[in-house]
Amino acid sequence: MPSRAAIVFANGTILLVPSPPIRILGIDPGLNRTGYGVVEVNGLRLACIATGVIRVPAGDLHQRLGTILRSLAAVIRDTQPHVATVEKVFVNINPQSTLLLGQARGAAICAAVAEGLVVHEYAALRIKQAVVGFGRADKRQVQAMVQRLLSLDRAPTSDAADALACAICHAHSASLSRALRSKASIAPRVRSIANGRRAWTARLQGLE
Amino acid sequence: MPSRAAIVFANGTILLVPSPPIRILGIDPGLNRTGYGVVEVNGLRLACIATGVIRVPAGDLHQRLGTILRSLAAVIRDTQPHVATVEKVFVNINPQSTLLLGQARGAAICAAVAEGLVVHEYAALRIKQAVVGFGRADKRQVQAMVQRLLSLDRAPTSDAADALACAICHAHSASLSRALRSKASIAPRVRSIANGRRAWTARLQGLE
Repeated sequence: MPSRAAIVFANGTILLVPSPPIRILGIDPGLNRTGYGVVEVNGLRLACIATGVIRVPAGDLHQRLGTILRSLAAVIRDTQPHVATVEKVFVNINPQSTLLLGQARGAAICAAVAEGLVVHEYAALRIKQAVVGFGRADKRQVQAMVQRLLSLDRAPTSDAADALACAICHAHSASLSRALRSKASIAPRVRSIANGRRAWTARLQGLE
Repeated sequence: MPSRAAIVFANGTILLVPSPPIRILGIDPGLNRTGYGVVEVNGLRLACIATGVIRVPAGDLHQRLGTILRSLAAVIRDTQPHVATVEKVFVNINPQSTLLLGQARGAAICAAVAEGLVVHEYAALRIKQAVVGFGRADKRQVQAMVQRLLSLDRAPTSDAADALACAICHAHSASLSRALRSKASIAPRVRSIANGRRAWTARLQGLE
């Protein structure tokens, strides 16, 4: 049965409209470890399609960035997400670490862009609010809530949990945007459904 | 006539060995402007194959990194360099600028890696020493020397000159490495040339 999104009218009427599942790739970039997670949004349900951590071996910078680029491209080809998300980073106190993180982040975003994905960015505060309900939640709280929201057997590692949390945050934001858009365009859509019904009724009456 | 590299022995003998032309891509990454230049090394001659600046329009980060990635990939496919080079950066005083530069650098390196190129990094000091002969040379001196070394009609813009200077620096380093490798392995190579000559002489004598 295809999933349906619920549109609730001010008078309490609920309209269920078909809504195809959407897959969201979350990335937590790092030059040593890059976490990733693909979440499928099917109506109001969330499911984890794939998650893991790309462990980048020591080597020259171009080799390390190449590992991130190729590994994420493989994840994208395997799981076919529709959109990518990445956490906005606060600059590190150590400028050299900031530069390294920037390069890893550039490689991760390029992997998504090269596969034709739009990349959305969310601040850590917003991600934690979306997943835990508290912007200053610690790593363990994020891991526990990600496990719960995605019905996972065990808590994901910290890097994987951050990536999945980013994808979940986008799922919530996207649902909200869709609902707001639906509300704004509800009148023409309802008219269109009514016209469609009338056309089918006329056609069926003609066949009788 | 194929180009030849000169190997000078301690006794003053000069051996010219065939050396195919090598193309080097130099990149000067930046999120607003990314300079590039492809230099062909043909024996002792240097020639500019292509140079320019990728001007990145304002937009979301993933769009800007996508522009750098795609534009550099097009340059690489058009000019077919064998290797890429990029300037090592000193971290900026402003951490946010360092992060942005890191991301642009990550995208530029990924463009080269995705096209199968190895990427060498050189410090600005070393590049200036290789091109101008003075590590603290200013931008105008670099532009003027790049114009002179590559016999260009006019001085390239600063971003393009920095990219070309990086490629020239690698050309010098690569020549030096080749010469050192040649010197280390000169005895077996000379024996091989002598054996080859003897084999050809015997064969030609047999044909007479």
